[in-house]
Amino acid sequence: MKLEINTEQLMRELHALAAISSEPAPVVTRVVYSEADMRARAYVKQLFAAAGLQVRDDAVGNIFARWVGQDAEAPAVGTGSHIDAIPNAGMYDGVVGVLGGLEAVRALQRSGVRPRRSIELLVFAAEEPTRFGLGCPGSRILAGTVSPETARQWKDAEGQSLDALRRAAGFTGEVKDAVLPQNYYGQFVELHIEQGKFLEQEKIPIGAVTHIAAPASAFITIEGAGGHAGGMLMPDRKDALAAAAKFILAVEAAAKATDSMDTVATVGICDVFPGAINSVPSRVKLSLDVRDIDPARRDGVLHELAQVSEAISKKRGVKIHTEMLNADAPAASDGAILRAIEAACQENGLQCRRMVARAYHDSLFMARIAPMAMIFIPCRDGVSHRPDEFASPEEITRGVQVLAHTLASLAG
Amino acid sequence: MKLEINTEQLMRELHALAAISSEPAPVVTRVVYSEADMRARAYVKQLFAAAGLQVRDDAVGNIFARWVGQDAEAPAVGTGSHIDAIPNAGMYDGVVGVLGGLEAVRALQRSGVRPRRSIELLVFAAEEPTRFGLGCPGSRILAGTVSPETARQWKDAEGQSLDALRRAAGFTGEVKDAVLPQNYYGQFVELHIEQGKFLEQEKIPIGAVTHIAAPASAFITIEGAGGHAGGMLMPDRKDALAAAAKFILAVEAAAKATDSMDTVATVGICDVFPGAINSVPSRVKLSLDVRDIDPARRDGVLHELAQVSEAISKKRGVKIHTEMLNADAPAASDGAILRAIEAACQENGLQCRRMVARAYHDSLFMARIAPMAMIFIPCRDGVSHRPDEFASPEEITRGVQVLAHTLASLAG
Repeated sequence: MKLEINTEQLMRELHALAAISSEPAPVVTRVVYSEADMRARAYVKQLFAAAGLQVRDDAVGNIFARWVGQDAEAPAVGTGSHIDAIPNAGMYDGVVGVLGGLEAVRALQRSGVRPRRSIELLVFAAEEPTRFGLGCPGSRILAGTVSPETARQWKDAEGQSLDALRRAAGFTGEVKDAVLPQNYYGQFVELHIEQGKFLEQEKIPIGAVTHIAAPASAFITIEGAGGHAGGMLMPDRKDALAAAAKFILAVEAAAKATDSMDTVATVGICDVFPGAINSVPSRVKLSLDVRDIDPARRDGVLHELAQVSEAISKKRGVKIHTEMLNADAPAASDGAILRAIEAACQENGLQCRRMVARAYHDSLFMARIAPMAMIFIPCRDGVSHRPDEFASPEEITRGVQVLAHTLASLAG
Repeated sequence: MKLEINTEQLMRELHALAAISSEPAPVVTRVVYSEADMRARAYVKQLFAAAGLQVRDDAVGNIFARWVGQDAEAPAVGTGSHIDAIPNAGMYDGVVGVLGGLEAVRALQRSGVRPRRSIELLVFAAEEPTRFGLGCPGSRILAGTVSPETARQWKDAEGQSLDALRRAAGFTGEVKDAVLPQNYYGQFVELHIEQGKFLEQEKIPIGAVTHIAAPASAFITIEGAGGHAGGMLMPDRKDALAAAAKFILAVEAAAKATDSMDTVATVGICDVFPGAINSVPSRVKLSLDVRDIDPARRDGVLHELAQVSEAISKKRGVKIHTEMLNADAPAASDGAILRAIEAACQENGLQCRRMVARAYHDSLFMARIAPMAMIFIPCRDGVSHRPDEFASPEEITRGVQVLAHTLASLAG
């Protein structure tokens, strides 16, 4: 089977979607349920409709676009990703899996194939933790890994609930109806940029993801004692930011100490109160993000950091409170889908390497309700979550080619 | 001479002024030229007028309220402080010197004294660095330690200039006319809470300030490389926040290493970009505040930190840029005023101890144009710049008593 990918149209659509942002180009910022997010949704839904797909939203704003197969009753093959973007992000993360998935479907349509099973494009309501402080809210709900009642009460920084926000955005119905049954998808496969350097360094165009690393995240609040930067003498201080600095360095050290490339740990947020040049900081809120493909090793890092917290707290007379946001299990890909990806690569003369995904992906949760795998393509310098994130049209085209062949093979 | 201090009226006025804040009680926040600041100015000016003082504003909003002496031409004795307050501050810092100064004048008026020289109350336009990133903008201008042209172009975080802001607040005329001549004041004396624990610990009601510590401040910008918290492996990182953590701990260590109680150093601001839970920080902006009564020792700390910056920069592959905001000279008090303060204490049966001021004070700059000294009173736990900042009515009354006697003695 020979499939023609329309790279020109796909790139045009990628750029059009990138222009829908709450900040000026080249920055892409699309926070779930924001005005930019709503415009982006309208844009992709119009593309889906133009391709003859049956489009529906669920109660929280996950978008489904189905190409109905010969056997409309058989479990569909799912593909897709997300279009939300953290503040100051780029144009490829998530989007390549959505618009690339659409182009894969269109390429199959143009080739005259009519698959036995339906192929369904999925745009997850949100993958980024920006709004609710928790990654993958959309797929967590779909996969039933969170109770609908809990999900309704997730709050953003302004105290607005997911339930209020999704209603204000026009998504009605019951959140519980968004939970998908176990046999809804026969398989799920997601195309994504790597967000790391492995493929680029190895000069391999396609990665077949065998595991998705298990992320754990938390907020760490440090309470010290504030005071005047001139009047409060050094021995009297319980400086919350100095205590936070000790913790930040311990996070870095703990990740490096595992001696595994697969362990990463990050403090991405450091909010200081009162945050004045002449005030000793009284309170600091840090975020913590630890990932590994080995959940035991990851939990070892968390355990180490809990001990460090206690030591800092004792030594510096500060209170440290840890609020775990999540500590998800890693996911393993399905062997049959991996083999289908590898066969698709072979058919297209593309080298493929099995590898690990270290970023959060909706497929982590889709794995709970369907056999899953992911297809990775390289991105320049491993850079992601930045405006200069880049994957070339050729790299994207190869990924779409492999996705289309894989979908055709799975849908039969 | 026996002076009666009306503690009840003074406390009523202190509480009324505390209620004028841009945040709900007990928080006092009054940023210069804000709506809360303008209401606070109107309140104190009305009190000054009620006491029969001649009130005027200068071009930047320093307020002068003069009790004209028998010899109206002789240089006045100045007293006063500030009423602006950093975000989330308390009700005594600065304000005790303004309303306490007013009550000292009223007590002298009630006693039937008519001093030979005029006594002038001064409310500095702003003492806090909140708006322009630089402490004591009002007294810097008065004392001619900054060129009027430079001062006009000081900018706040939103890029608004002092010149535009003071005009919008209704202060007209030329900034250069705000500079006071050298013989304008014969002496200047400021009453203030200690903002430290010394007097409380020693159980001494009055401190006579012999030196004001020399503050230096800077912004430190650290540029690393951002990326995805999952995809960017530990060896590839140039995490700006981890580099910042090293610097924050070095600041603390450098201040402690001088082995002098008089050295203090603080990082009060830590702004992280992009500041997302799943992004490796690419840029961090820190503030640095270093103070000492010995400028050479203070500059030694700054030199040490410059070397630390360079080492961090090399080791971690980040760029570190230091923007010095100021490095002011310390000030020594005038011996004759100190003796007048001590005599006033003796007359009132109050213990007095000579001591060092470690916080920024407008008197640091007034010392450039007049013989200067400060009167300190204890504050609870040494706490300042917080809503729970506290000085008792008795402590305040004693400070006002000593100030009134000192003013009477200086004004002759």
